[in-house]
Amino acid sequence: MKLLFLSESDRAEIWRPVLQRLAPELEFVQWPDVPDPAAIDFAAVWKYPPGELKRYPNLKLVSSLGAGIDHIVGDPDFPAHVPFVRLTDPTLTAGMIEYALYGVLRHHRQMRAYAAYQREGRWKPLPAPATASCRVGVAGTGEIGGAIAQAVKGLGFDVAGWSRTGRGPEGLRMYAGDSGWIPFLGRCDVLICVLPLTAATRGLLNARAFAAMPKGSAVINIARGGHVVDADLVAALDSGHLDYALLDVTSPEPLPPGHAFWAHEKVELTPHIASLTNAETAAPQIVDNIRSYLAGRPLRNLVDRTQGY
Amino acid sequence: MKLLFLSESDRAEIWRPVLQRLAPELEFVQWPDVPDPAAIDFAAVWKYPPGELKRYPNLKLVSSLGAGIDHIVGDPDFPAHVPFVRLTDPTLTAGMIEYALYGVLRHHRQMRAYAAYQREGRWKPLPAPATASCRVGVAGTGEIGGAIAQAVKGLGFDVAGWSRTGRGPEGLRMYAGDSGWIPFLGRCDVLICVLPLTAATRGLLNARAFAAMPKGSAVINIARGGHVVDADLVAALDSGHLDYALLDVTSPEPLPPGHAFWAHEKVELTPHIASLTNAETAAPQIVDNIRSYLAGRPLRNLVDRTQGY
Repeated sequence: MKLLFLSESDRAEIWRPVLQRLAPELEFVQWPDVPDPAAIDFAAVWKYPPGELKRYPNLKLVSSLGAGIDHIVGDPDFPAHVPFVRLTDPTLTAGMIEYALYGVLRHHRQMRAYAAYQREGRWKPLPAPATASCRVGVAGTGEIGGAIAQAVKGLGFDVAGWSRTGRGPEGLRMYAGDSGWIPFLGRCDVLICVLPLTAATRGLLNARAFAAMPKGSAVINIARGGHVVDADLVAALDSGHLDYALLDVTSPEPLPPGHAFWAHEKVELTPHIASLTNAETAAPQIVDNIRSYLAGRPLRNLVDRTQGY
Repeated sequence: MKLLFLSESDRAEIWRPVLQRLAPELEFVQWPDVPDPAAIDFAAVWKYPPGELKRYPNLKLVSSLGAGIDHIVGDPDFPAHVPFVRLTDPTLTAGMIEYALYGVLRHHRQMRAYAAYQREGRWKPLPAPATASCRVGVAGTGEIGGAIAQAVKGLGFDVAGWSRTGRGPEGLRMYAGDSGWIPFLGRCDVLICVLPLTAATRGLLNARAFAAMPKGSAVINIARGGHVVDADLVAALDSGHLDYALLDVTSPEPLPPGHAFWAHEKVELTPHIASLTNAETAAPQIVDNIRSYLAGRPLRNLVDRTQGY
């Protein structure tokens, strides 16, 4: 059996030894060096050229090499009859939690204001809002968003979630769907975006959304750059309505030179590093799903491509 | 019965209504307006002029208005026969946890390096050290330090503690006393100082201590400025041995104009705001101890002034 490693990145050297150790029965074929496309049974993919998967007529199962799947859902030539599974990764979730907590604490503890005072040589304590009165909202309450919500709540913040369906982790106050979106934003002193990027969520963080948030609030985006209407975010920061944006993702990536985010004093920008999938913890899921497929067992984390997650 | 509120700060307006509501039987006397010092039974104190407590011949019990007690332990004229109790405060502990987590995450997630890249317009992911391999050390593992250690450990960091006795929260790897100090520092990628300030801990964060820490490590001080030998810290940062210092406390406070910490690019400075005692949660402890004293019951959080905590 042959597994095609299909990614534009240089991650094959990390994944190959892990996959070969776990599944010696699978022959690792590294794209683009594929002498016989018809011999490929399985594919592990990340940010590949659209249409590429059509070239493999005997493909049985495609695994994403990350939690995000918009690059695949957005491929109109994805072979519709082939099941597609995504990863969940505890390391990835932990990294996302760290990054989100950092942003929440940096805003809540007014560390940017204190940095400005330090530059001015001022020793000036500010009134400190109580943690229990700081309202944090997590948009997207799947595995990662749900875990973030629980972690932030565990520190004593007043946390709620929003999702299309209203499903979220047990005990989390949830807002649902279109009708819940603006009320949800109205109680977001800090908004953490962990949404999947779909036709329905593209551009959702726009002028209307920012206007619905409380004055002085913060936006943390660890999902996809496409969720944000950049010009609207800059306008909301410039007007003083929003105070802080922590952005790990942009559209496109890398962020082009001269983009307003680079030099904006209220924007903290990182190059898509909130979390990286860890091959050691993620590879077993790929192998397990391949073995489940071969044994006729149900697949884990099968993606419904009509919903986009 | 009369309770003297003895503090140089302007906190009386916050404490008075809370204490009066909880203990209407106590008459609230606000220093320095004390017509009859002999009528004072109890005192709640914070940063008062040394020697002041000698003026009250019938003082039965002194309560600190904060968790720190060095200002009282350092008063050679503290009436030796009067019991002295300190506060513990869940709000205060929570604030300390937030502040320490912020510093750990800012260092571990390399946010200062990314801020520098942002200023240069560079989109450059850095190799990310695993959280489980980031070694955090908490010096001082009493109520606050112990809670910080648990919180940091809960995020997956490799945490150990140090205290004079080696006592710490259950399950935390501990180093003890003089012989454990340098070995403890040798595994501190991040050192969080939560020590009491005593004759034995003053100046403990000095050139010898910093040299024992791994290259590129970070220091977070939320205890007292007197723990740090400022010139040694600046030298360790300048040499590149230490990468980051997050300081909420200095000696003296406010930090004097022109001090090297103000403009140091590796120093993040805040004006003693890591946590403030919350009167709502702390006042009941003062009242309970007064009532325990009157009923002959044991006092909670009685301070051993010979040890300094």
